[in-house]
Amino acid sequence: MLFEIALQTVIAVNKGPGGKKSVAPRFTKKSHVKLSEYLRNMATPEIEAQLAPLRTAVKEYGDLIRTLKANGAPKMDIDKAVLELKARKKKLEETEVSLAPKEASFDRLKLEDLLKRRFFYDQSFSIYGGVTGLYDFGPMGCALKANMLHEWRKHFVLEEGMLEVDCTSLTPEPVLKASGHVDRFADWMVKDVKTGECFRADHLIKNAAEKVILDKKADETMKTELRDVLARLEGFDDKDMLEVITKYNFKSPTTGNDLTPPIAFNLMFPSQIGPTGDFKAFLRPETAQGIFVNFKRLLEFNQGRLPFAAAQIGLGFRNEISPRQGLIRVREFTMCEIEHFVDPSDKSHPKFRKVSSCAMVLLSACNQMDGQSAQSITIGEAGVVANETLGYYMARTHMYLVKVGVDPRRLRFRQHLNNEMAHYAQDCWDAEILTSYGWIECVGNADRSCYDLKQHSRATNTKLVAEKKLSEPRAIDIVEALANMTILGKEFKKDAKKVNLLGTLLKALKYQKNISGPNSTCSNVHVEEITPSVIEPSFGIGRVMYAVLEHSFRQREGDEQRTFLALRPLVAPIKCSVLPISANERLNPIIEAVREELSKYDLSYRVDDSAGSIGRRYARTDEIGIPFGVTVDFESEKKPWTVTLRHAESMEQIRLDLTELGCVVSALVSERMDWTMAQQKYPRFEAKSD
Amino acid sequence: MLFEIALQTVIAVNKGPGGKKSVAPRFTKKSHVKLSEYLRNMATPEIEAQLAPLRTAVKEYGDLIRTLKANGAPKMDIDKAVLELKARKKKLEETEVSLAPKEASFDRLKLEDLLKRRFFYDQSFSIYGGVTGLYDFGPMGCALKANMLHEWRKHFVLEEGMLEVDCTSLTPEPVLKASGHVDRFADWMVKDVKTGECFRADHLIKNAAEKVILDKKADETMKTELRDVLARLEGFDDKDMLEVITKYNFKSPTTGNDLTPPIAFNLMFPSQIGPTGDFKAFLRPETAQGIFVNFKRLLEFNQGRLPFAAAQIGLGFRNEISPRQGLIRVREFTMCEIEHFVDPSDKSHPKFRKVSSCAMVLLSACNQMDGQSAQSITIGEAGVVANETLGYYMARTHMYLVKVGVDPRRLRFRQHLNNEMAHYAQDCWDAEILTSYGWIECVGNADRSCYDLKQHSRATNTKLVAEKKLSEPRAIDIVEALANMTILGKEFKKDAKKVNLLGTLLKALKYQKNISGPNSTCSNVHVEEITPSVIEPSFGIGRVMYAVLEHSFRQREGDEQRTFLALRPLVAPIKCSVLPISANERLNPIIEAVREELSKYDLSYRVDDSAGSIGRRYARTDEIGIPFGVTVDFESEKKPWTVTLRHAESMEQIRLDLTELGCVVSALVSERMDWTMAQQKYPRFEAKSD
Repeated sequence: MLFEIALQTVIAVNKGPGGKKSVAPRFTKKSHVKLSEYLRNMATPEIEAQLAPLRTAVKEYGDLIRTLKANGAPKMDIDKAVLELKARKKKLEETEVSLAPKEASFDRLKLEDLLKRRFFYDQSFSIYGGVTGLYDFGPMGCALKANMLHEWRKHFVLEEGMLEVDCTSLTPEPVLKASGHVDRFADWMVKDVKTGECFRADHLIKNAAEKVILDKKADETMKTELRDVLARLEGFDDKDMLEVITKYNFKSPTTGNDLTPPIAFNLMFPSQIGPTGDFKAFLRPETAQGIFVNFKRLLEFNQGRLPFAAAQIGLGFRNEISPRQGLIRVREFTMCEIEHFVDPSDKSHPKFRKVSSCAMVLLSACNQMDGQSAQSITIGEAGVVANETLGYYMARTHMYLVKVGVDPRRLRFRQHLNNEMAHYAQDCWDAEILTSYGWIECVGNADRSCYDLKQHSRATNTKLVAEKKLSEPRAIDIVEALANMTILGKEFKKDAKKVNLLGTLLKALKYQKNISGPNSTCSNVHVEEITPSVIEPSFGIGRVMYAVLEHSFRQREGDEQRTFLALRPLVAPIKCSVLPISANERLNPIIEAVREELSKYDLSYRVDDSAGSIGRRYARTDEIGIPFGVTVDFESEKKPWTVTLRHAESMEQIRLDLTELGCVVSALVSERMDWTMAQQKYPRFEAKSD
Repeated sequence: MLFEIALQTVIAVNKGPGGKKSVAPRFTKKSHVKLSEYLRNMATPEIEAQLAPLRTAVKEYGDLIRTLKANGAPKMDIDKAVLELKARKKKLEETEVSLAPKEASFDRLKLEDLLKRRFFYDQSFSIYGGVTGLYDFGPMGCALKANMLHEWRKHFVLEEGMLEVDCTSLTPEPVLKASGHVDRFADWMVKDVKTGECFRADHLIKNAAEKVILDKKADETMKTELRDVLARLEGFDDKDMLEVITKYNFKSPTTGNDLTPPIAFNLMFPSQIGPTGDFKAFLRPETAQGIFVNFKRLLEFNQGRLPFAAAQIGLGFRNEISPRQGLIRVREFTMCEIEHFVDPSDKSHPKFRKVSSCAMVLLSACNQMDGQSAQSITIGEAGVVANETLGYYMARTHMYLVKVGVDPRRLRFRQHLNNEMAHYAQDCWDAEILTSYGWIECVGNADRSCYDLKQHSRATNTKLVAEKKLSEPRAIDIVEALANMTILGKEFKKDAKKVNLLGTLLKALKYQKNISGPNSTCSNVHVEEITPSVIEPSFGIGRVMYAVLEHSFRQREGDEQRTFLALRPLVAPIKCSVLPISANERLNPIIEAVREELSKYDLSYRVDDSAGSIGRRYARTDEIGIPFGVTVDFESEKKPWTVTLRHAESMEQIRLDLTELGCVVSALVSERMDWTMAQQKYPRFEAKSD
């Protein structure tokens, strides 16, 4: 169901405010046929029949929780029901994904082989044995990432006039104490009692349970119990996990030794600043805190006005206990975060109407409790999002993700259930992307209320507030303390000025307190101080990139060994390949002219003049996602010089004058022109072999 | 002398391969007059007369060292003479800078006030009391930096087809042990014996000595001695410093307590990866090592061919003992590094002729030993640079720095003296920029030979070599060990295959060893394995940025309080301001059209519709380096809509159709058009007040 509905999203988006064309250029005829088949397969009544009982099972507990809440049942009972709800939800979701037709799945090993072999990325320090959770981006991955960040900056910072900042990774302990990270940013860990080897507790339980389930000799009752454990594991605390480890006698998988009870391990990398050793610091786990501690300066920069948004692109660090899943869970990563500061009593957004017709797939908390699948709906009609500003950013996030190459049919926004949210958050929607690892959270969109500013304000005794104009002036009585400097001077001599600060302090109080008394005067105030709410979209750019790579991975029909990446030209690491048909030196001046023509338009290109047939060289450039290819052949020599231009995805070619090349490729890359338009304008070229 | 010669550089550069125009657009008439005066002042015979004896004093020791070396004098004697040479060089240089005319100096406090007030950058975590050596970039600094990095990527990575990578900051200890950082990347530190407070030993001596020198009551002999200490301090080791501290009885400046002898403090930030606590790591002190450890993959990506260059933009970290001098010495900073791998026996560069006419100011080691000032010379004529590749990068570095706004008359390339270079380096030229802190090293250009690759190769037992085609095949005798699998199989059973690796190992040896014997065969080899040399340009982008800000800082003639930044449009944080002449709502549709027009061309802009005269608002936009300003006035309403466009540096205005605005500003920003050309094309507009 999800997928059929989602197709409408694609069309709607392409017609919507963000798109300029009715058909995105990467949907060529061939792949289009394949995709619609895929969607038809997903909507079969057979599949829906299999899912129906699971949906009912979820709804049963959704309804139960609603009833419990309505009747004011004890928190413990509700928590228990929520745990069961989540377990049933998880089973439903896994079944949904597992029923996806074979055409939808793909060979992850093949993709990983390509990415490693062509150095998109690889484990860091591999000649030293490698470090898990650390990855280096090679030329292709680095350029793809840089292009995605460049688009992000254009799409958000430039388009919205955001205040971009660049703060340090090193962060003193008191800052992260105030934000709550020192106390709460932790995972449960168990240790081998003899060797001290560490395991993430939930991973250990998962692996041990799966081993039992796959063991043909194991007891069936135990298997059923452990299946239940797996479904509930996400909600387990240390006591639940200890109970499982003890009951099933789980041991260290490497030594068979006993394990310690789960202990909290803080996920921040510790360090220290300066030589003394007593200035404790951490590498930041998110970039957001750098924005919060600069709030005052940023507000000032915005001439004291609300709302405004600040943004930051930078590194985040998390010392995962045992990272897995490639780029999905890493220890050092690039984040793009926005903190939009807004009046808590008015979270409307002036540009909301511009995105209101953007169709998105939403999976609301309510849908989740009812066992329903996600809904395709325009953000303007989606009443479930807490406020316009949050909705606006969700729509803009959707547009960005589709622009850089996420398949909109594998993208949804899932609302956090009440108990999933941080205690301070008011509403939270994760942009989740379907990959071979399942639905992966790639962007969080949260209304963080005024939690962070209040915490830093309290920790530093600094006002982090904005002034808001009152609709009408308010009359208040104030006491103004005027110091008698003659007396103060006598008493305190040169310190008298400092003592007089008392007066300043009392003045500062005048907006908050109505103090009346014999010496008070009456005054009108026109402003009040408010702590802004914060709406935060937070992107894990490495995860988005991985999803884009999966969604772009293709195999040529009829030649499944020939894989390629159909990356959007906008983000493709290299825009154009240049291939001389032969090594004959006569072609060199033309190759040189092609280079100059492409450089003039700042187009990245790669010349492949190595040995090998032209077809083999094309395959090599297709593999790394170069969307266009220029071939210089002997026909090119006739004046005026011409070249052929090849569209990698469709493998079709046109022939055009060399002097027009830069302009055409530039238009194709920036999507001002699509391949169909180029084909209409220039004669088709039939290659002898490809 | 330096400055007069350097003027020729400006002209030569503007005519040279990098420049498109004969006059850089930022040299308006007014500032031009001022600058030539400044240069004339520098060349006075009076100044030269004051410098002459200092030059002779330097030359005396330069000659002495040459003689000592020629006569094979003991190393200790040479080292002593070098120390004296450096002290004399330093005195000469400081006098040169101090004799610069007043027009050349500027009010650093005024600039710093501007940069802080308009949030270009500020100390990090200031609401928590701040951390020395850590800075956050606000919207203006962040955009300036992002634009400088974007230009860097275009100028180097794209233009030269470099392989850009993006490696992690977290680096395991063994990697930095191999590179030499664990053992040698340290500064000398002394501690207060009672409180444990730490001081950088050379800073402590400098401050204490300066205090004595300024003390009117202090002994004159002691003052003379301490002046000598100051001149030599840079070359001091721990023993020299201990001697000074003991002799002059220097104490802790905060408590007056005794100090420990100098101890080495490693400047890398320590951390650890994973939960066990025994995986020691550091934050990288430079990005270069990430490239070296990926050498094999990069060579493969380049299809095994030399030469090629890899580049990286990323963070570096140095745990300075007591950082000072604002952005010049910080603990976390952005670096841009290039590692160009080349055959050690052929360091020619195919594009060298393209830059050979680039005029640069070079201060060779020889000039330094002779007490001579720097020379303006084209890189093609400069015989002193070790090889073409190094020279090519120096010229490209020069072009980049000038492009982003470094004043070429305050830029020089200084060659390291023999004893200044790392022991593995073959030649090294620092791009130094003259700021109010003196000549600051901003870019290092070094020939690092094959040191790093060899170190990592040794540490990991991995071959880090390239294959080089021999000009003619070489006949060698090789022993090929063919295992007798029958015997091995019997003996080792299923491990036989592993044992057979012995044969593979012997095969790998065949290129290195001529082994002849009864079982050897004769074979022709066509390639040999070489460890490439590395040429490394390494940019500290924060330092370059600070220099650009100093060089761009201006005061309006006749109104010295009105300061502004004449940033190059290419890197200016915001390209255009938009100012409605009044708050009248009739102008709103035109403002909206201006916004759309500028967005269409991806031009960043800032609307200032705050209260205040237009002149005051202009001053505010000039201050943050916005090069162009659009004003919407009541004249604008006549169809077709027109606006005025103002050039901040000259304060001149033209009037043009709104539909032409984006195209014109875009051309001005990318420097395809200069202001003079714009003035010729569009009618001049005389503002009533400014």
